[in-house]
Amino acid sequence: MKQEERRQIIIFGLGAMGRKIATLVLKRGYVIAGAIDFNPQSVGKTLSELLGPDAPACDVRVSNDAEAVLASIRHGVVLQATASFLASVEPAIQQCAAHGHDVISIAEEMSCPSAADPAAALRLDEAARRHGVRIMGTGVNPGFAMDMLVLALTVPCGHVSHIRAVRRNSLSAFGPTVLTSQGVGLSPEAFEAAVADGSVVGHVGFLQSVALIARHLNWTIDRLEETRAPILATARRETPHVTVEPGQVAGCVHCITAFSDGREVLRLEHPQQICPETEGLQTSDEIVITGDQVIRMTITPEIKGGDGTAAAAVNAIEYLSAAQPGLLAVTDLPVNSPRHFAS
Amino acid sequence: MKQEERRQIIIFGLGAMGRKIATLVLKRGYVIAGAIDFNPQSVGKTLSELLGPDAPACDVRVSNDAEAVLASIRHGVVLQATASFLASVEPAIQQCAAHGHDVISIAEEMSCPSAADPAAALRLDEAARRHGVRIMGTGVNPGFAMDMLVLALTVPCGHVSHIRAVRRNSLSAFGPTVLTSQGVGLSPEAFEAAVADGSVVGHVGFLQSVALIARHLNWTIDRLEETRAPILATARRETPHVTVEPGQVAGCVHCITAFSDGREVLRLEHPQQICPETEGLQTSDEIVITGDQVIRMTITPEIKGGDGTAAAAVNAIEYLSAAQPGLLAVTDLPVNSPRHFAS
Repeated sequence: MKQEERRQIIIFGLGAMGRKIATLVLKRGYVIAGAIDFNPQSVGKTLSELLGPDAPACDVRVSNDAEAVLASIRHGVVLQATASFLASVEPAIQQCAAHGHDVISIAEEMSCPSAADPAAALRLDEAARRHGVRIMGTGVNPGFAMDMLVLALTVPCGHVSHIRAVRRNSLSAFGPTVLTSQGVGLSPEAFEAAVADGSVVGHVGFLQSVALIARHLNWTIDRLEETRAPILATARRETPHVTVEPGQVAGCVHCITAFSDGREVLRLEHPQQICPETEGLQTSDEIVITGDQVIRMTITPEIKGGDGTAAAAVNAIEYLSAAQPGLLAVTDLPVNSPRHFAS
Repeated sequence: MKQEERRQIIIFGLGAMGRKIATLVLKRGYVIAGAIDFNPQSVGKTLSELLGPDAPACDVRVSNDAEAVLASIRHGVVLQATASFLASVEPAIQQCAAHGHDVISIAEEMSCPSAADPAAALRLDEAARRHGVRIMGTGVNPGFAMDMLVLALTVPCGHVSHIRAVRRNSLSAFGPTVLTSQGVGLSPEAFEAAVADGSVVGHVGFLQSVALIARHLNWTIDRLEETRAPILATARRETPHVTVEPGQVAGCVHCITAFSDGREVLRLEHPQQICPETEGLQTSDEIVITGDQVIRMTITPEIKGGDGTAAAAVNAIEYLSAAQPGLLAVTDLPVNSPRHFAS
């Protein structure tokens, strides 16, 4: 690991996640040299105004002129927190790369771009090499809880025949967008209809987790099965954003099963719901690796998604800086731990 | 990751661990091109004779002429399983490097050579670079359960203030050498005397785990405290090698605590004993990361030490082959998962 070259940071996207990232970047002693967002509520404000008193002071102002910000900084690291899907984030990533900046994105599909769009992955890799920069995606899920950590647990295995990961988390802190995408508050019938018409999507990231695992283990996956089932409340559950009566949908169990040579080799299960504690349900991350030994891991409660994703993005800065130019995945690098700067 | 260059393997040391490693190497489809051991019981035998019917056939004969074996193979990978301590294994590693071979050692002190002997670590790094080879140590403990896995769990943390890892395992399968080094079968008084005179050593590897963690997190450790306490049987415990009566020593709790700026930042606890199940004790690996989030992980039962170490060594082959020459640690590489060869 190359030591202590403190890179200039550019925050691209200052919604809830971008603010978490910016706060942590400042707490970790990095210099934020630019901040980009297109929300009129944020443009023109200083980061201190936007981040509040919990963040170290920073008088950089949020700009909606991405081109000007990116051109004003030399060989920075862009932390992108704008959207989930590759098609939405690729143009800005290409723009950052063209200006010679490394890019760390928390877009779910960026954790393994080839899983959603192999041509886009090739474009990103080609652009990164041409401009001499590194591009990667990271986060807790995808990027850690159901893929990177799974792979870490295979180190003491001589052979792996099956992997199962279950992430049980709470949606209580989330607002209407996430709750709608999980079908929270619907009747069972409306849930089935919403799955059918694509308005209940469940988790975004399974294809990326499957691809990261398969690529690292050199497995060939020839078939996937996905299911989305409702979690029905048996007691009243309530958050600031929604109330769910018994019999209504409190969340969604999204599962994916991957087959190789006709045999199930990987199963990821992700029940997400509001107020699991109301019915005595404990949140957790569970992984079972079956091979020449069986490894049963439990983390209780589950790894925090929002704070964890911000941390994973900030931790990646030092590891990305030491890597060769190109499109990278977290699985290509040493584990991205938080490096303490020597004072 | 460079694809599918199947390296020629040399097994250096064919005791219990070397045999596990050789068997897995063959099962994974690698070619063993040489086998070195100095035990007259093994020299001259084929690997098939030595490994028995569970291993794929291999008619390579064990030789005690290390120089001749190492000179007969070009740019191979040596898997070394001969001893625990750096001073014992360094000469053979230097010999392998001089012949242009990469080396993967399961010697405990090789997981982080600078922890035991900084000068030896520099010599190994210099030799590796001069000969264009890679040298590394790996294993379950040190190398995974109390260091690499700890670091993997810090990925979703923006800040880590304390780490605790506890590995509870069983010594029931081990013979007299290990049992003596842990004080099994002694009276409490004899145990204390044996700790004082150094004949009860406890675990070999704490200094390496502490160093791997501190280096990866860029922590400065300024003080260490170590304790070795007896585990007293309250019921009769028995293995093929020893019988322990109530009141006698069934094992050893070895702990190390690391301080930074006068504050405890890391505590590793390793209770090892025969027949923990006799008294209803469950074996496990536990890790608690405390920082901006708290991550509590449990693996039950514990990761298997012997098989896991053999797997970690074999899994390292592909990752080492893709790395730059030098002395490496597992924490410098992507996680060493078992890569399935395309058939």
